[in-house]
Order: sequence, then structure tokens, then C-alpha cells
Amino acid sequence: MVDTAERVPNAVSTTTPAPAVPEPGPVGASPRVDVEALGRQLLGDWAEARLASRRLAGRPEMQKQEGLSVAEHRKRVFEQLRLLVENGQVHRAFPKSVGGEEDNGGNIAAFEELVAADPSLQIKSGVQWGLFGAAVLHLGTERHHTAYLPAIMSLEVPGAFAMTETGHGSDVASIGTTATYDPETQEFVIDTPFRGAWKDYLGNAAVDATAAVVFAQLITQNVNHGVHAFYVPIRDANGDFLPGVGGEDDGQKGGLNGIDNGRLHFTGVRIPRTDLLNRYGDVAEDGTYTSPISSPGRRFFTMLGTLVQGRVSLDGSATIASKIALKIAITYADQRRQFTAGSDTDEEVLLDYQRHQRRLLPRLATTYAASFAHEVFLHKFDDVFSGVADTDTDRQDLETIAAALKPLSTWHALDTLQEAREACGGSGFLTENRLTSLRQDLDIWVTFEGDNNVLLQLVAKRLLTDYSRKFAKADAGALARYVVTQAAGKAYHGSGLRSVAQTVRDFGSTARAVNWLQEPSTQRELLTARVETMIATIAGRLRPASKLGKKAAADLFNAQQNDLIEAARAHGELLQWEAFTDALEDAPDEGTKQVLTWLRDLFGFGLIEKHLAWYLINGRLSPQRAQAVSAYIDRLLTRIRPHAVDLVDAFGYGPELVRAKIASGAEAERQAEARAYYAERRADGTLPPHEKSQKKR
Amino acid sequence: MVDTAERVPNAVSTTTPAPAVPEPGPVGASPRVDVEALGRQLLGDWAEARLASRRLAGRPEMQKQEGLSVAEHRKRVFEQLRLLVENGQVHRAFPKSVGGEEDNGGNIAAFEELVAADPSLQIKSGVQWGLFGAAVLHLGTERHHTAYLPAIMSLEVPGAFAMTETGHGSDVASIGTTATYDPETQEFVIDTPFRGAWKDYLGNAAVDATAAVVFAQLITQNVNHGVHAFYVPIRDANGDFLPGVGGEDDGQKGGLNGIDNGRLHFTGVRIPRTDLLNRYGDVAEDGTYTSPISSPGRRFFTMLGTLVQGRVSLDGSATIASKIALKIAITYADQRRQFTAGSDTDEEVLLDYQRHQRRLLPRLATTYAASFAHEVFLHKFDDVFSGVADTDTDRQDLETIAAALKPLSTWHALDTLQEAREACGGSGFLTENRLTSLRQDLDIWVTFEGDNNVLLQLVAKRLLTDYSRKFAKADAGALARYVVTQAAGKAYHGSGLRSVAQTVRDFGSTARAVNWLQEPSTQRELLTARVETMIATIAGRLRPASKLGKKAAADLFNAQQNDLIEAARAHGELLQWEAFTDALEDAPDEGTKQVLTWLRDLFGFGLIEKHLAWYLINGRLSPQRAQAVSAYIDRLLTRIRPHAVDLVDAFGYGPELVRAKIASGAEAERQAEARAYYAERRADGTLPPHEKSQKKR
Repeated sequence: MVDTAERVPNAVSTTTPAPAVPEPGPVGASPRVDVEALGRQLLGDWAEARLASRRLAGRPEMQKQEGLSVAEHRKRVFEQLRLLVENGQVHRAFPKSVGGEEDNGGNIAAFEELVAADPSLQIKSGVQWGLFGAAVLHLGTERHHTAYLPAIMSLEVPGAFAMTETGHGSDVASIGTTATYDPETQEFVIDTPFRGAWKDYLGNAAVDATAAVVFAQLITQNVNHGVHAFYVPIRDANGDFLPGVGGEDDGQKGGLNGIDNGRLHFTGVRIPRTDLLNRYGDVAEDGTYTSPISSPGRRFFTMLGTLVQGRVSLDGSATIASKIALKIAITYADQRRQFTAGSDTDEEVLLDYQRHQRRLLPRLATTYAASFAHEVFLHKFDDVFSGVADTDTDRQDLETIAAALKPLSTWHALDTLQEAREACGGSGFLTENRLTSLRQDLDIWVTFEGDNNVLLQLVAKRLLTDYSRKFAKADAGALARYVVTQAAGKAYHGSGLRSVAQTVRDFGSTARAVNWLQEPSTQRELLTARVETMIATIAGRLRPASKLGKKAAADLFNAQQNDLIEAARAHGELLQWEAFTDALEDAPDEGTKQVLTWLRDLFGFGLIEKHLAWYLINGRLSPQRAQAVSAYIDRLLTRIRPHAVDLVDAFGYGPELVRAKIASGAEAERQAEARAYYAERRADGTLPPHEKSQKKR
Repeated sequence: MVDTAERVPNAVSTTTPAPAVPEPGPVGASPRVDVEALGRQLLGDWAEARLASRRLAGRPEMQKQEGLSVAEHRKRVFEQLRLLVENGQVHRAFPKSVGGEEDNGGNIAAFEELVAADPSLQIKSGVQWGLFGAAVLHLGTERHHTAYLPAIMSLEVPGAFAMTETGHGSDVASIGTTATYDPETQEFVIDTPFRGAWKDYLGNAAVDATAAVVFAQLITQNVNHGVHAFYVPIRDANGDFLPGVGGEDDGQKGGLNGIDNGRLHFTGVRIPRTDLLNRYGDVAEDGTYTSPISSPGRRFFTMLGTLVQGRVSLDGSATIASKIALKIAITYADQRRQFTAGSDTDEEVLLDYQRHQRRLLPRLATTYAASFAHEVFLHKFDDVFSGVADTDTDRQDLETIAAALKPLSTWHALDTLQEAREACGGSGFLTENRLTSLRQDLDIWVTFEGDNNVLLQLVAKRLLTDYSRKFAKADAGALARYVVTQAAGKAYHGSGLRSVAQTVRDFGSTARAVNWLQEPSTQRELLTARVETMIATIAGRLRPASKLGKKAAADLFNAQQNDLIEAARAHGELLQWEAFTDALEDAPDEGTKQVLTWLRDLFGFGLIEKHLAWYLINGRLSPQRAQAVSAYIDRLLTRIRPHAVDLVDAFGYGPELVRAKIASGAEAERQAEARAYYAERRADGTLPPHEKSQKKR
């Protein structure tokens, strides 16, 4: 902790004394976390669906079996999909007309929890019902629902979602596969014109799929109407490719080997005109194209938008993986001892080391933030898909939230799984302790269903659009008024002058500087100011683009790309912070609320610390206050540490879902046995006197 | 790029204009990299050993075969070890008296390169000859060399290095296994007193090892003399455990599954007195203990110090893995196209996107820094082990360098492998493209052979010791004089006042501020100042510890733990920067030197940017200059980009060592085919007119 009295002289330090850092709450107070009640809060509004899915995920036959060959793992997961059907776990989102429940939120909540069983099982069921089935549901019309959904729901027809190609992943609009309408036979002819247009990485495609929803450029009357989806049978009852269809197995992957990803290509494959999934675009018998959405761009994004649920569920399941990782690492760190420090005989518990706290507790805070943000996100999704709030703006907001949160939570999961693995040392590397297996399976989370960097660019463009709508012809006066308006609203924007004033006040009134750290509005102001200032700055730099040629404008934009992505990330982090802050109001009692508030503060100040240079450069924090941020984080860590085990227990994942030997209590037993042995040796005098002498150099 | 003319008004920006950022060299100049000559420089002084090892690693029978079961992979790797023996690749470090070459540097260089074949092969050979064999060599004496080394070298006796226990990894001094001397039979009795004292994670222990070097507390005449090593046979010719020995298989791991890691425990296992590896401690027939090193602590660290080569080779092999990862990702990024931006028809190459450059090129710079630093490190190792420079200080320096560099390069490898995987999208996740496989195998690099966080603490303690030796009774005056002395030496230390002056000068003289970015001394000053100031600050905070009780002192130390580790990291980064800078002098020609200098600048300013908040808080950089750092990095990226492929080609890893389909040129072929197809469609007018229309919203 920084204490001005103990700092070395100015020569090797800052020029001015750091302000005193306050305690985050009364010293000696010891709030209690109500683990069960907090657990209920975390379960959220689709608690029943989650609990049902967890019960299923905890059954031995649903769990990932390690050490299987790729072929065996694929087979096991396919059988598990049948169990999902038998247990009625996969039909919540489908229309009541075909036996579903039209429960979009509950469907996603249940689906996410399957990650605890086996991520391959989760993603393969996502391919079958969340992509293949959902494409028929959302892009098709009544005739497709009646004809195809029952067999898809029952797994009678396993299918692939054939969108991505070897040559085009993120840029779906540029896929090469064509579907050319032939009015003579009233068929579409599906073709793969070159190697890069092979469909690739498709789950179910290597072995199981007998049909696929194929995305292709719809060409009729010699006009390309852009990407549309088609229902295409690909294999016969024997599992052989139908005429004109070919493919390859993608083979072994870095994880998710229970899924048979593969490639597909098409040569003159003919399907009936009516197998165009025609909700957003149709071709009449004579070849005339019609669409309820006239703009090809808007049509394209509307079609893709119906598939947003993949991003929703990845945000949720990634956060579940982070919860399991922290449950393992924090349970272990609270039992495992290594090195004596404050005593001659007793070794320290890992979680009492500051570094270990710095490694795990901020990630715990982020996991809580991601969990609460996901609940808000899931509600937004349910509102849009249930029709409760389904305007264009709602859909765009949903997509922006998805594009902001999915990257953050999936990167966070990989980071947390890795840190947890390292924090468990050699034990963490053993497959029996789960962490490496989960991490390998989740690796692809950060690039599939929208590459994280590409998604964040979409967010940034939305933020820029919003900004420029307000200031299309803005002058400095308009900007200044915007700033004042915002200040009067939810967020305060300091100007440059403000920074100077703040520095002066630091010297004049330590009390007020101290207070500043404890006001939640501080975090909101700083986090909000960063997003808005970054976007305003980038918008200013991009302003000349409209006067430039295409290449020069592209170069100007490209020179801002990194900052744009960072701005989008800051926006996503703010969404998480706001969700965490709102969730504090629902805390079950004062003790739990106090601990959650510390955790929220750790999250908020953690973000501010990560971007501290930005706050300093932009005059939002004085050097003194910037320094106080890190010191305050250190104090928060010591406050949260005694509650760390409660906070991971509240996630509600029992041993059948955690399945890591080191989190089973075995370590505590071993430590107790070793300590008893040494205590006995010490008591009967047979303990060799030099027991620790070799440790001093 | 930051340009003051285009920035938005002050209200949402910094208070003062940023200084103009200079070009990193003449605009329009286009230096050429001599790939072959740079390749020779990178090979370093043990080039022949490296090339021989690469030739071996490139042979099909030495390569990792993916998709094997754990049992099959173990078997294959064991056979590969035989091939290493047959090819004379593993005896370079052993004494000439038993057929070795006493070539320590060459041995490590050759060993490191095996990572390109299969990391399991590398590490299993490291267990056999670098740990098990090296322990007999360095901790044993002539009688052990004669009796045991030939069979170890020939693999007739595969062995385990039984140091780590389930209960103690990092804290080796506290292991529980005992070796109690029985003068009646002149034997040591090896015992495992409790479950936590089982030996664990030992390569070769699950299946292959017939002997082990067992580390245990040596007890004689009822005195524990601390940890010593013993040669202990553990299995008979049939592969069954000998009486009193037991064990378990560690089972599947997150990677390195070609190695049979396992657990061992001992119950009253008797070995002859003479099988104590007695170089640093011996027991006479009557039980009298003697040692050439009187201090138990120094004896312990001297024994461990002889095993430093593991860290040397991990530093090297981790850096090789980073090279292979970047060779794959940069080759692909230079061919792969996605999205049009500056043209209506041509898609951009990934590596032309600023974000993609930001993701890969700084990691390329760090990889060069790590590579050059490793060469310096390897020389230091060779000097110590060959006896050229083998004082206590040399050995301590070597250990400090090892403890600083191994964490940095192994974390860097995981980070680089992951970023490369993500930068290759779905392709990166396929096992055929190597990245996930390498990452899984290297995961354990960051916690074995010394946990990275623990190693960095050792570095920090060494830095604190050095510092306190100079200032044991320092007052403020002494510190100030230290600062002045250092300023007159290699590094300039700004005081608080200096910062103010700098800010003023920024306004007064833009030219001088511009110059500042181009002076290499700037990077050295800033990087050095950070290490020294951090250590001085921490030392100041720790000063009261001597007056405190054990518990309070431990708490005070613990409160600095995170900062200590950060200071150690900064020290390691400075070592890498200095090595990179020294290597510039050996650049083969001016063009290559120019490009390498940009790369070194990218590395240096990248470090400064990462820690920018520290420089701002501590008054080392004004906000204006801090902002210029990021802008300068952007300019460096555009300068280095055209040379990126040359810079990865210079690593010298051919297709037989890279073994990634996407880096084989297949992507370039696919792109060419697709572009030819579209060009043809455009030329004959059959290209649908709306080809891109759906991309606009």
C-alpha cells in the first residue's frame, strides 16, 4: 500500500505526495455474504431453465469423457444430442405450432448451461437447433417450418449451417457460392465456383449432416440479389454425399473435437424454387425477385440479425466457463499452502499472497460484471424475439450489445481459464483438473460467430454513427454544448481546465480527494468520459474523409482502426459496469451488497487502472489521483479476500459440474495430514532441528 | 496518427496540443533486409549445433504425429529418444571421459531446436539427459559418472528427476521425502511420510523410468542437513516397481502427452550410502556429515544452481515457438484478403490493416529481442559451465538472468501462439495449422522449471539486495548522489523538477521534442529509470521491516509483492532491450540494420507505451510526449510492415519445421484463383451488377 510517510525521497519518486487513500468501508466491519441468496440473484429470471439444464449437465452420460479419440468423441456427443431431445431440452425456442414453447430467453439460458457438461455437446446442439434449425425458423416461412422443423427438432435430420467459406468468414457478403435460378425447371442451381468458395468449418458437415442451410449469392434474371439461404439435402440415408455434393473432414482441432466440422462444395446441385428460405426475399416462378426490404444492405443485415442468438449464448456460456475456472482456482488457492512467511512453522495459503489476489480477484470481479451484463443482454434478446420490443432500433441495439459483450466475455474466459490454470501450477495442467480441457474447447469462442476484432469494429462504427448523427455539422460550439448537456445528464465531462482545477484541489483538500474514491459516480464519470471522448476524437480525425478519394479515405480510416476497437471495448466495459451497478440494487441484504459493492469497485477501478495513461494524458486524473487508484485497489483486494470462497460458491456449480480433483477438498486433506505430521514430530522432539535452515541464503 | 490540426476542440481533448511526431527515418527510403545474412546472425555462435538439430527435427519420424492416443504418443516419443542417441544429438554436454564433448552451449542450442519436431520429444529428452543425467553429472562425483552416466546416455536406463512433490513445487526446501542414514547397514532409507510428499509430475515416472534421482531431506545422527539427491533404482527389468516403491500415472495433460508423467512414493527403500550424489555433501560410514559448503542455505542454492540449464533451454525453445507462430501468422496475413476498403474490387491483405499490424508486429519485435537476449544468456551459461567465468557472482548473475528471462519468453510464447491462432481465424484452430498444438504443449512452460511468478520474485529480491548493499544506511543525500552518479553513467534519472522542465521545453521547442523520439538513449533512459525507481521506491517502503515482528514484516513485504514482480519484469525487459540494441551492431548491412533498428524501437517504445501511466505519474514523460509515443509506434508499424515477411523468413524455419498448411502458399493460390474468376466475370460482363451492394447498410 502506498503510504506517503514511508515513501523514498523525491529524487526517485513523484514530485508531489500522493493523497491519503481511504479504507473502502469501516475498518473491522465484517459483512457476511448470503451465498444461497446471491446464488439465486445470479441465476436470474430464467432460473428454472438453468437449473434443469444443470441437472442434465451433471449426469455422467452427459459429461465430457477425456482421452477419447476424435471419432469416439464425435459419436458420444451425437448420442448426447439424442438425450437432449429425449429430455425435452432443445425445443423451448421453436413455435408452439410444431411443439415448441416460443420461450427465447429460457432456451438460451438452458443452452448456455450445457457448456458445463461438454462444450462440444453445447456447440453441436447449437449448430443443430440454434443455427441450422433457427435459420429454417427465422429465414424460412410457414411451409419450411411445417416441412422441416419437426425432423430437425427430433434430430431425424442433422444439419449443417453452411455460411462460412474457406475464403470468406467475417465478410459474409462476399461469399462465392452461387444459387442461380433456372425458370425452365423452377429450380435453383447451387455451385461452388472456386476452391476458396468451399464451405468450411461447418459443424455436422464432416459426418452427420444429411441437409444444410446453404448461404449463396442469389442470381436470377442475371442479377445478383446478394446472400440468401437455401435448404439443401446433402447426404442420403447411407451417409453418402448426394450427386454434385462433395466435402472433406476438417480433421482434428485445437478443441471441441466432439463436433465433426467439415467442408462442403456443390457442383450443379438442383433444389426446388420453394426451398429458398424466403422470408426476406423470394423468386417467383418466372424468376422475378421480390423482397419486403428494398435496400439490399438492410436486407442482408436483417437476415444476419435473426441469427444473433449465437452471440448471446456464447456470451453466457463463456461467462459460465469463467465461473467454473474461478471456482476451481479460488477453492484451491484457499487451501493450498506454500512457503512460510509470517511464521516459522505455518505455510501461507496461496490466496493470502497479494500477487495471487491480484491474479484472481479482479478476474472474479469481471466475471460478476459479465454475468450481470449477460442477464440484461438476455432480456434484451428475449424482448426482441418475443416481439415485446422489436423495433428496428431495438434490433440494432441488440446487435450492438451482442457485438460489444461477446468479445469481452469470450476473451475474458480464455484469460481467466489460463490464469486459473497457472495459479494451480502443475495440477492445473492435468486434464483431471478440467482447466486445460475447458480452455482448449473455448479457444474458438473468440473468433467464431463473429471474430472479436471485427465485432468490436461494428460497435465502433455504430458509436461513430450515433455521434455523427448528433454532430453532422457540428462546430466547436455545438460540441461544447453537447458536453454541457451530457454533464447535466448522467455523466460529467471534464475539460482540460477541469483537470488543472482538480490538481489544485488535491492539494487544498485531502478530504475531498479521499471522498472521490468512494463515490460510485466517479467510476461512471471516468468510464463514460473515456468512451465519449475517444469517439469524439476519432470522429474529428475522420472528418476530412468525406473530401478524400476512396483509397485515401480508407487509409485515414485504417489509421484509426486500433483506437476504434479500443473505444468499442471501452463501451462494452461501460455496459458491464452499468449492469453490475444496477445489480447492486437487487442484492439480497446489506452484507452481501457491501461485498458486491467492493467487487464492483474493484471492477471499475480495475478498468480505470488499465487505462490510467489515457486518463492522465487526457487530463481526467491528476498524477496524485492516478496513483491513489492502484493503492485503493490493493485495499479492495484485502477487503474482498475473506469473501472470495463465498463469491465462487454463489455461482452454484456443484462437484458434478466442476469436476476438478483439486477443487474437491483433497488439497485441504493433504495439507492437514502434512501439518499433523510436522506437529507430531515437533511435539515428540524428533523433528530435525535444521528443518528450515536451508531456505536462507 | 495523431495530428494536431485534425483533432477535435479542446473540450473533449487534451489541454495542450500534442507535439508533431517525426518520421522514423527518411520518407520514401526503402531499405532491404538481407534475409540470409540476418538468418546467420540469428543462428548465433552455436549455428552448427542448431542446424544439425533442425535437420534431425525436420525428419518425418521425428515430427509430432497428431491424433495419437496418449499411450501411442508416449511410445513414439520414447522411440524418438533412441533416434537422438543414434544420431549423437544428446551427448554434447557430458564429460569427454564418458564419451561426451563437454560443449555446454552447443548442447543447449541443439536441444532447444528439438521443440520444432515435437515439444514432448524435446522435454522428454530434457528429463533424461538435462535433469536426470545432469543431476548425476553435477551433483554426483566421479564414481557416479563412471557407474551411471554411460547407461543414462545410451538410454539403457531411462530415469526420472524426482524433486517436486504433490505438496511442494516452488518451495523445494520444504519437500517431505526423507533419506535417513542407517550406520549399521551403511544405507540410506528413503521414505514418503505423507500423501503430500509423493513425488509428482515427474517425466518418465509413469512408465519408462527404471531409476530416479530422488531429492530428500538427508537425516543422519538425528540431524536434518536439508535437501540432497540420491540415485535410486525404482523398477526391475520387467517394468515392475521394486519393493517399497509405488506410484501412479498422472494421466492425460493439457499438452506434452508424449511424456509419461507420474507420481512416486517410497516406503523404507534402502540404497547404499555411496548412492548419495555427494558433490556438495557427504556422509561417512559412521554417519558423520561433511560438506564443502558450510552454510546450508548456500549449499542448497548451489545444488539447485547446477540445474539452471533447464531454464536456459526453455527460454530458447519458447522463443523458437514464437518464431514459428509468427512465421505462420505473418505469412498467412500477407496472403489472406478480407473486405474491400480502398478499392471497389480488390480486397485488402490482412497485414495491411492497422489492427492486424498492432497484433503481430510488436510481438515480432519482442521475439527478436528475446532471441538476441537468449544468445547473451546462452553465452553466460556456457562461460559458467565451461569454467571460463565461474565465480559465485557469475553463477548468481546467471541464475538472475535465467529467472528474469525464462518468465518473459515463456509468457510471450503463449501470448504469441494465441494471438497468431486468433489472427488466422478458424484456420488457426485446425490442428493441421500447428498453432493450437504448439500452444497446448507449451502451456506448462510458464509454471515448470520454476513458476514464472516465483522466479520474478527471486529477481526482485536480488535487485533489492543489490540496492540495499549500496544504501544500507542511506539518507536522502546518498540517494540523491546515487541518482547523479547514475546520470553520469549509462542512464539519466530525471527528478520531479526535470519533468516540469521537460513540459515547458515541449512548448518552447518542438524540434527538440521531435528529436527526443529518435534518440536511442531515450529508450534506455526511460527503461532503466523505471527499474531503478521502482526498486528504490519498494526498498523505501520496506525499510521499516527490520523494526517489525515476523508477521508484520511479512505483511509489509506481501503488500509490495505485486510491485516487486512488476519491477523484476521491467528488469528482464531492459535486459532484452540491451541485447537487441547490442545486436544492431552486428547487423549484416545498413539496410538490414535500419529495419532492425525500427524493430528495436518498436520493442522499446512498446514497453514504454505499456507502462505509460507509470512514466506519467512519476513525471518521466509529459502528457504531450506520452501521446507522441503511441503515434510514433503507429509510424514504426507502417515502416516495418513491408519487411515483415523477410523478418519471419530470416528465422530460417523451412516447411518441414513450420508444417502449417496455411503457411504453405495454399492461401495465395486460393486468392489468385478467386480473383481470376472475378476478373473474368467482370471482363465478359457476366458479373452480376450488385456484387457488392448488400455490404452497405
